[in-house]
Formats: sequence, structure tokens, C-alpha cells
Amino acid sequence: MPTADQLLAAPVVDPPFDIVRAAGAELRVLDLAASEHFYVGLLGMLVADRTTDALYLRGWEERLHHSLILRRGPVAAAARLGFRVRAEEDLDRLASHLTGEGLHTSWAQEPDPGLGRVLRTFDPFGYPLEFFHAMTHCDTQLQRFDLHRGAPILRLDHLNLHTPRLEEAFAFWAALGFRCSEYISTDGEGERMTGAWLLRKPSVHDVALTAGRGPRLHHTAFWVGEPGGVTRACDQIAAAGHSDAIERGPGRHGVSNAFFVYLRDPDGHRIELYSCDYYTGDPDHAPLRWSVNDPRCRSFWGTRAPDSWYDESSLVLGPDGEPMPTEAADVDERDQRSEVLA
Amino acid sequence: MPTADQLLAAPVVDPPFDIVRAAGAELRVLDLAASEHFYVGLLGMLVADRTTDALYLRGWEERLHHSLILRRGPVAAAARLGFRVRAEEDLDRLASHLTGEGLHTSWAQEPDPGLGRVLRTFDPFGYPLEFFHAMTHCDTQLQRFDLHRGAPILRLDHLNLHTPRLEEAFAFWAALGFRCSEYISTDGEGERMTGAWLLRKPSVHDVALTAGRGPRLHHTAFWVGEPGGVTRACDQIAAAGHSDAIERGPGRHGVSNAFFVYLRDPDGHRIELYSCDYYTGDPDHAPLRWSVNDPRCRSFWGTRAPDSWYDESSLVLGPDGEPMPTEAADVDERDQRSEVLA
Amino acid sequence: MPTADQLLAAPVVDPPFDIVRAAGAELRVLDLAASEHFYVGLLGMLVADRTTDALYLRGWEERLHHSLILRRGPVAAAARLGFRVRAEEDLDRLASHLTGEGLHTSWAQEPDPGLGRVLRTFDPFGYPLEFFHAMTHCDTQLQRFDLHRGAPILRLDHLNLHTPRLEEAFAFWAALGFRCSEYISTDGEGERMTGAWLLRKPSVHDVALTAGRGPRLHHTAFWVGEPGGVTRACDQIAAAGHSDAIERGPGRHGVSNAFFVYLRDPDGHRIELYSCDYYTGDPDHAPLRWSVNDPRCRSFWGTRAPDSWYDESSLVLGPDGEPMPTEAADVDERDQRSEVLA
Amino acid sequence: MPTADQLLAAPVVDPPFDIVRAAGAELRVLDLAASEHFYVGLLGMLVADRTTDALYLRGWEERLHHSLILRRGPVAAAARLGFRVRAEEDLDRLASHLTGEGLHTSWAQEPDPGLGRVLRTFDPFGYPLEFFHAMTHCDTQLQRFDLHRGAPILRLDHLNLHTPRLEEAFAFWAALGFRCSEYISTDGEGERMTGAWLLRKPSVHDVALTAGRGPRLHHTAFWVGEPGGVTRACDQIAAAGHSDAIERGPGRHGVSNAFFVYLRDPDGHRIELYSCDYYTGDPDHAPLRWSVNDPRCRSFWGTRAPDSWYDESSLVLGPDGEPMPTEAADVDERDQRSEVLA
Repeated sequence: MPTADQLLAAPVVDPPFDIVRAAGAELRVLDLAASEHFYVGLLGMLVADRTTDALYLRGWEERLHHSLILRRGPVAAAARLGFRVRAEEDLDRLASHLTGEGLHTSWAQEPDPGLGRVLRTFDPFGYPLEFFHAMTHCDTQLQRFDLHRGAPILRLDHLNLHTPRLEEAFAFWAALGFRCSEYISTDGEGERMTGAWLLRKPSVHDVALTAGRGPRLHHTAFWVGEPGGVTRACDQIAAAGHSDAIERGPGRHGVSNAFFVYLRDPDGHRIELYSCDYYTGDPDHAPLRWSVNDPRCRSFWGTRAPDSWYDESSLVLGPDGEPMPTEAADVDERDQRSEVLA
Repeated sequence: MPTADQLLAAPVVDPPFDIVRAAGAELRVLDLAASEHFYVGLLGMLVADRTTDALYLRGWEERLHHSLILRRGPVAAAARLGFRVRAEEDLDRLASHLTGEGLHTSWAQEPDPGLGRVLRTFDPFGYPLEFFHAMTHCDTQLQRFDLHRGAPILRLDHLNLHTPRLEEAFAFWAALGFRCSEYISTDGEGERMTGAWLLRKPSVHDVALTAGRGPRLHHTAFWVGEPGGVTRACDQIAAAGHSDAIERGPGRHGVSNAFFVYLRDPDGHRIELYSCDYYTGDPDHAPLRWSVNDPRCRSFWGTRAPDSWYDESSLVLGPDGEPMPTEAADVDERDQRSEVLA
Repeated sequence: MPTADQLLAAPVVDPPFDIVRAAGAELRVLDLAASEHFYVGLLGMLVADRTTDALYLRGWEERLHHSLILRRGPVAAAARLGFRVRAEEDLDRLASHLTGEGLHTSWAQEPDPGLGRVLRTFDPFGYPLEFFHAMTHCDTQLQRFDLHRGAPILRLDHLNLHTPRLEEAFAFWAALGFRCSEYISTDGEGERMTGAWLLRKPSVHDVALTAGRGPRLHHTAFWVGEPGGVTRACDQIAAAGHSDAIERGPGRHGVSNAFFVYLRDPDGHRIELYSCDYYTGDPDHAPLRWSVNDPRCRSFWGTRAPDSWYDESSLVLGPDGEPMPTEAADVDERDQRSEVLA
Repeated sequence: MPTADQLLAAPVVDPPFDIVRAAGAELRVLDLAASEHFYVGLLGMLVADRTTDALYLRGWEERLHHSLILRRGPVAAAARLGFRVRAEEDLDRLASHLTGEGLHTSWAQEPDPGLGRVLRTFDPFGYPLEFFHAMTHCDTQLQRFDLHRGAPILRLDHLNLHTPRLEEAFAFWAALGFRCSEYISTDGEGERMTGAWLLRKPSVHDVALTAGRGPRLHHTAFWVGEPGGVTRACDQIAAAGHSDAIERGPGRHGVSNAFFVYLRDPDGHRIELYSCDYYTGDPDHAPLRWSVNDPRCRSFWGTRAPDSWYDESSLVLGPDGEPMPTEAADVDERDQRSEVLA
């Protein structure tokens, strides 16, 4: 396995396409009404559109049609992880790149409402990725403070992937032009990377890689304007009788500096409300290293995350529409228990 | 006129009745629907009850039936300033005291919904005061974060009176058992008090006296849990298209330390959203003096209040139901302009 | 045992003395320099005075000389729990009352700096109580925002006692004039009270009783102006390398509505930073009941407290200066595990 | 003059160099000790370096050596407005571009501490611009919450230019690759743009153009993590006796959504503390239009800015080291007073 140093020493790639940012996720849910209650009723997200089987949502700042799709399905799973590219031509160039990497690509036959061309693939680890440029524009509701509900959720921020082969995944995303802002690694000889925060937009990340059984989606994160919004969301969720949806936090991350809380939706999909990270847009912005043995890296205040946070994640759907089989990781990033497991 | 020192040197009175706190106000409004939009729609207060002519409101923390009455009337004015006493017997003892002071008292013939006996008087300056003990109890909504709207407004905090004869008013309230937490006075020989903060509950005040034309009600203040609630209220009011309702602030008071904003309702009645004052319950809590020439006493950050804040106030209704005539004050507390006017 | 209902149905006592509020604590510490680093360096409290063996501290709002004494000793323990009375004469009347209850009282021979007469006793459960009226006044530093450090800590708010005989302790404090704002009790026949919040000043409490092994001091709580101060304190403590001092939270209490965090000082003494409770000063303010099986009562967001929070507390010093022996409680208020233990 | 629509309809330029962001300013000050007191003592900025004549400062998040230079000089003025480019080669390409625009360029002979090559020019309006890529890296202090002082100031965010020929300036910056996020314009036929917010990094702006007498630097803005930091800074400044340094706010901008305050340093240079803007990195992010007659565009809460905010700005130094002469603008963006002046 390449060490953390080797991964970070690889030359920065400037690929011939431009992925702007993480831009969406599609979650399969068993009970769409329960999901609507959670995302719209409790979290206060905006409904962009709805069909019999699906709900299209966005945050209050967002100007594109939707960033989250909830679709009724027979099994709770993540069906799509979406990214926006700078221009239509980037889709074609990206398709070439992916094909060159030996991946199968396709164009969505029936794109969702608001969407133009959508390029789809399954990456080498089984994650169902999709890329688009064109999407219907909407008016921002950022300053409709009189209508805001919940934190409020302003916009999709990032996707976190539970991945059994983190080093390989790191290289895959680096080849797509993602840079690393922070990482966690084991100590001593042959440092193994156990977590990596990778970005296109100049925030801490668009994609995080968390070492663990996968391919699974660890969580989908939404941006909240300030720490007070994160705690307000918790107060509201608890007041409505759903305190069991609060899995971890609120707290301060060491990695990313974010003030956060993790929630679990009615199907167990994990949502992070995320605020307070920092600017990473300078070209020579150097990755910050955290030791997996530093109790502050995951929770700056030293609070241990519950085991569920390390163990549970959403399955992802494979090309056949069935959940992808998962494999275990040989390294784990549980705080203060960094032993290589296999 | 007694100087500030003389007023404060008077022995503390321990009267044979116990006024617990400022507990309500009745405002006469021209357009009840417009008022409902302001207090309920924009500020998010709870509706306790309503009749054809009146709306009964309270804050989210409050356990008594109402703290604010809006009643349709031919002229915008303050009709009642309410205080709660510790026990029913206190009403009788207070009635005796007021009669002894030469005031006319009466018992409300048709108390408002939720109220027991109500003792009414007009104080020597013309303010329409009322006192009660019994009021219907309600469940607090303090932790219904999922339902909260606005700042949210938690409870009535205090009443501020524009008074032309501040020294006399100070003595009147002192005889009712009110202590002074802070005051503003002119500098030099024969210091004139131009503002006084008087309390029964151990906060900075239940009644404030502001030197100026009166009798008029300068403002009714509601408690907000934290500064972020004050600014949230402003964001919501402005987003709803009513930024002209924001008269002064948000800001930090020097006096009281409060983080505040002043609003004007559709009839021009002034409302303060007020947070962050401090504990004053110790028996020897000494009054803090501010010089009227200290730019930080009214606005700790030095911001000048608009002239409207000094000049405009709500008329009060007299015994005949007509607005009381007002008289000018011979001293003014405008910052840095402390000259005795007459 | 009296049930919760029976305890609350007892007539409210209006004793012939007036205890104003909880006003101080003296903690014995093994390493005074380590304690100074924690309370002054990390928490930013003000140093009122120091001797070779003791440090006298107060919060930024406080106008009395000190509210916390740290004194070097051979064993970490709580040596005194202090309360202020309204007048000197209250001390004498209180002494009579305590004697009448069969307790031994004494007057401190060498009062600490800043203090006048100090009445001392050990209550029937072994808690070392003291009462005073006179203490040197100091200027408040509430508005020295330029000097504030830490949360900042504004003032002492309450003391929480771990007590094996909660019902008896409830009656003892009720006889001292303390009212109940909230309580936790078991469900079903013969409800046992497992927690009680008792007040003199009109906040949620001056003294809390927590069912458990005792007599022990569960924690000393300080008031912080807003939730942001509580999280800022955590950020600062963690940044300084002491995240292990953060035991529980930050979070929202169901009981009291407080936004809180619990810290452990170098000797294990527990400190709460506490904000956002509410007004309780009305004479008929009714106690709120929580079921011990309601996961929101201790942590509104449903977060479980660590076992240490239930199990560990500071011993108290007895008349001989040695730690008082403790006895177990037959009821416990651990959330969702309310079984009567013995 | 081109109308606002015409300016925005121009094709987006993708120049052969990449300016990353606004990255610094050099202010000339009369009394360096007074400036140090303001920026370091009151605002809590970090001192990166100092010489006899200059002070090099940065914010707590920043990883480059400095973002603000204060240099003693005979006249208070802005000497340099700095921008970072992506790579060394961008400097050469940019030099070619500027030469092609008819501008004189030069390379700094004695770059300041920490800096590599610095390309300098005076733009067609007289602003002293400089561009660099290489600067010494430093450790971020973002999470040294225990050491933070002031808001704290995290990083330089943008520069605001008072410009008499806004339309021409808009075209100049557009040719450098700056996009527009928001603008203010007059109403009716031939809309004149009176304010423009232009960006390279995906925030609301790196450079703002404000119609008015110029060339002058209206203000230098620093990023603060949350609104509470902005008000904390005001509290600290006022507590230290410098409330006169607070010129406008705190408040909410309509444009940019920022929660802000404007300060004046001892030489009158204007500093903005700025938080809460939003993501603008999508390629088709459309500019938001505000009418100059909308009272919410400058102050969402409707508060009028003081005249000083419109009238006063820092002179800029010309090629001879003397302040550049200024010319008046023929349009003004004062709220509700949008008449074309000349």
C-alpha cells in the first residue's frame, strides 16, 4: 500500500475536464411520507418537485433545481452521488477519461426533472457516480428569513464515502482533479491513511473517504450558516419527538474545524449538518495531517463517536439496481484504536 | 428638585404589599388586523384568546394567560400598564396604600379573559396602572422549539415610561417597593436624574423612567433568549418587507448591558426585544451611575439613537378614555446634549 | 417514603429568615497551581485574592468579593457550600431554626477575606453548609468585554448535591423556604422522586438534589451569558490541550432548558457551565414533572450521559475535617433505567 | 455609458492568467504605534513581522505570511492593493496583458518580507495594484481558540474601491477574469450601475466597485466566522474606550447577505468585519440586481448609512508616492437618492 506521504507526493493532476463540486445525492427510501416528514417537516428543506415515487429537495441558498432526491424503493440505499461539471463539453471529456480508466459509462435515458445530460458510471469500488452540467435555475431563498425553517439548511456541501480501499480511492479521485485538504493516518513506519478530505470547490471537501467496509455512503452533508443553526436544528428535532434521530454531536470537528451534528433519517441514511470550515482555494494549500491516535481529530472536544457512526452506512446500488456487495477494510479510523485489522 | 444622590439616599421602602413584576400592557390600535400581522405574523407571539375587538397574546415561556392585549380603539394609545402582586390580599393592601397617596382606585368591572380581580388607578402623573394576582395558568411552550416563530419572544420584561417629572415619579415607584439598578444623570452641581431603571423582580428593571414629555409609554419590552434571536427577528421582519418597523438597533445598551432592538408597530407603539441583562437580586445591589454625557450609556457602541426614539411615545388613556394631556420635561437625556431645557 | 406528589403537596413554608441564593463553594484541591491553571488559565475566572494556601475567585458579573474558594488540602473534597441571606439578622434567625432542627451550628472563627459573620452547620445528611450576609463589594466587570476570558463565566448559579435520601433532603430544603421548579420521578404507583430543582432566586434552581450515593457534591454551576459561550469554552479548553476535562455535553437539558457543559477540574470536581434557563419568580409557579424514563429529561437531544456523570462526585468534609462517609441511594435517576435498586 | 445590462451581457473572459483572490493591502499610517494598538490590541490580529517602519499582520486562519501591511508614512493613504495568482508564470502572462492594455508595469525591487516576485502597476483609474504568487507559508492558527483575540479576524476577504468611472472599471476587472455576483443600479431607462461585486474566489467578491469620488480605497474587509464575532468585536472595542471607531453597523447587508460592521482606524482607513456570505462558484451563477432605491440593498434592516460612509475613503498613492488626485463621480449609490449628479 502506498503510504500517506506517497499518496500526497504524487504530482497534482490537472485533468482536461473540470468538476466544480459535489452537487447531489439520490437516496432510496422505504416510506416516502416518513422521509418527507424528516427532510421537509423536521429539517425544513425546500420541495422543488415531486412525483408519485420521488421528492426533489434543495436548500434555501441553492439556485439549482434540486440537490437531494428521495425515491421510494424496495431497499434503503444510496442510488446516485452527483457532481456538477463546468460545461457541457466537460461531460464528454470526462466520459473519455472514465472509459480510459476501464469504466463503463452511460447517459441517463430519463433524466430527473430539471436536469440536462447526465453521465453515469460506477467507479472501480462500486460507487454509483453521476455528472451533469445543465440544471434548471431557481431563485435563491437565502434572504427569505421570514420563511426559513430548520437550521436552515442552505446547500449541499459534501459526500462522505465508507471505502475499504482508501489508498486506491484516493488515487482515483486525485486523477479526477481532487486535492487533499486534511487526512488522518496511522503513526509510525508505513503510515496508512485512514481518512481523507478531498475538494474541488475551495472548502475543506466535496468528497471525504473514510476507511471502512464499503462501498457505502457514510453521509450526505448540508451547509448551515452558523453553529447556532446546528443546535437549533437539534432543539427542533427533539421538540418534535425525534431526538432518536440525533446520532452524534453537536460538536466541533478537529478535522475541518466544522461545528456539526449527525442525524439518521427514517431509513438510517446519515445526514450531517455542517458549518464553520475554511478557505482552501490557494494552489499550494498544504494538507493537514492528523494522527488517528489524536482524540481531537474527529471530535475536537474529545467526545468519542458512538460505534454506530463507525459501523453503519448506507449501501449503494449497483448496475443491476441491487445493493452492491461490500468488503471489509484492513484499517480503521476509530479514535485511539488504529491497529491494522487484517 | 432632589438630586440623583438625594433620591438614592432615601431609605429603602418595604411596603406592606408585594408587587412581583411588570406583567402586561394593553395597547389601543386602529387596525386590529394590521396589529395581528405585526405581533403574530412577524413577531410570532402566541394567541391566547381573541374577541371581536381584542387580541390576547403571550410569549413562548409564559405560563399566565396573556401579557399583551391589543384592543381596537379610535386612537392609538396605551390603555393599561399591568403588574402582578404576590397574593390576593396584596391587592387590598395596595388599594389602601394608593388611596392613602390620594389616588382614586377602582376594581375592574369586566376583567379581561383569564383574569381575577383587577385593581386600577391613575398614578399622580396620569399613567393608567392596574394590578392583579389571579390569572389562568397555561402550559409553557418554552421547549416547543419546533413551533417557535420569530425571535422567539419569551416573556414580557419591562415597561418604559416617558415622564416629565422623573424625580417625583422615582419617589412614587420607590414607595411601591421598587429599587434602582442603574440611572443616568447630568454632571456637575445638582445632578438631575434623566433616566432610572427600577425593579421588583431581580433583573435590571420592571419599570424604566425616561425624562421627557409625558405621561407617555415609551416602550413595552419582551425578553429574548440570546442576541442571535434579536438579529433573527430583524432579518425576518425585513425579509417580510417591513424593515421600516425597525427604529433603532440592534445594538448593545450600556445601561443594562442588554442586546436590543426597538421596533414600531403599525400604530407607532414601540416594542423592544431585549436580552442579556443581569442578576440584581442581592439586597445591597448598588445602583450604577451613568453620565448623560457618556456616549456609551444608551448605546455601548456609541451609535446615536434617532430623534424619533427620544421624541415619540404612545399617549396614555386617562379616566375618561381620552388621551391624557402631556407636559414637557425640563430635562432631557439625549446623549451628549444634557442641557436643562427650561 | 413520601411520593413526589406528597412532597409537592406540602404547604409552602415562609420561614422567618430569608436565604437569597446559593453564593459560593469551597473546594479542597491537591495541587493549587494546577487548579489555578484550570479555573483562571482555562476558564478565565477573576482572581479576587490569594494566600499561600487558597485562591479566591469570582465571575465577571459578580459584585461580591468571591464565589469560589480553592484551598490546598490533603484530600480533594468539597469543604463548604455557601448561601447568602438578606440581612445580618437572618443569620441569627436561621441559627435558631437550625438548632431547632437539632443541628449543631457555629460561627466561623476566622472568616475568609471579604466576609463578615459566617454561620456554619452540617445538615442532617452531612453537607457542610454556611450562610453569610456581609461580603466586601467589588466593581462588576460585566462590560469589560475587552478583558473577558473564557466563556466568560459571569456568576455562580447553583449547587447540585448527590443525595441518598432525596425525599428527606427535599423536606429539609423546603423548610428553609426553597421552592421546587422541576423534578424527575419514577413512573407508576408510589412515584419516587429521583431529582429535584429547588430555588430561592427566581431562576430554575439554587440547589439541585440528585438521587445517588452521598453526601457528595455533584457539581458547582456557573452562569454563562449565551450558548455560544459554552461552546467557546469547550473550544478553548480543547485547544489548550485539555479536552479530557470535558465530561459531558455541550447539550441542552430537558430539565431547566439550560444549554450546558460539564467539566472536571484537575481534582475531579465537576463544574457546569450553564445558560438559558428561565424565570420562576411568580408565587404560583408550578413544578414541572419529568419521567425518569423520558430520554429528553436529562439531555433534550437524547444523548446518554456517561456513567461517570452518574457515579462520580466530590466527597464532602465532615466536622472533623475528614471526608464524610457515604451511603448508597435506593433509587437512581439514570435515564431509562429507573428501577429501585435496593 | 454602457448600461448595467450591457456590462453584464459582455462575454465572460477567460484570460490566460489566473488571479486567485484578493490577498492583501498596504496602508500608510501616521502613527505606527496607534495603528498597532488598533489592529493588534483592539482587533487582535496576528503580528507576522515588524520593522522600524512597518508592521506585517495576518488573520488567525491565514497560512500566508501576511495580508495587511501598515507602514509609517507622511500621509494616510492606501499604498498597495494585492492579489495572488495561481502560479509564477501567471505573473508574466499578466504583465503582458497589462502592458497590452497600455499600462506601465514593474517588478518590486525590494519585496516585503515573505514575498517572492511582485508585479506592480497602476490601473487606468490610478489604483496601485500588485500581484504575487510566492509567499512564505505559516501554520494556521484557526484552532488556537485558546489564543484567539477579537472577533477573531480569520482572513482578508475583499477590497472595496471608490471609483468615479464604475462602468470602465467594471470592464477592466472583467478583462482580468472577474465575474459579477451582485450589483446595484439606477431604475428606468439607461440603468446606470452604481455598485458592483466582483469575484475570483467563489465568494460574493474579491473586489467591490462603489460609485463615488476616486480613485480611493473605500475599505479593506476581513472575514469573521459568525455574526457573534462581529458583535463581540464591537463590545471589545467599546469596552476599551474606542466606540468612536465604530462607524456603521453591526447590521445585515442586503447585497451579499453579510453580517457586518465598519470600523475606522486611527488614520481613518475603513475596515469591514464581514461574515455570512455565500457560495458563488458555479459557472452560470447569475448576478443579482438591486435597485439603488431599495432601502434594503445596503442595509437589509433599512438602517441608513451615515454620510461619512458614502463620502470618506482613503486616498491611494500614485507612482510618485504622492496621493493620486481624485475626480468626482457622476452617479452615486446613496440609498433612495439615486439621481445622476452631473
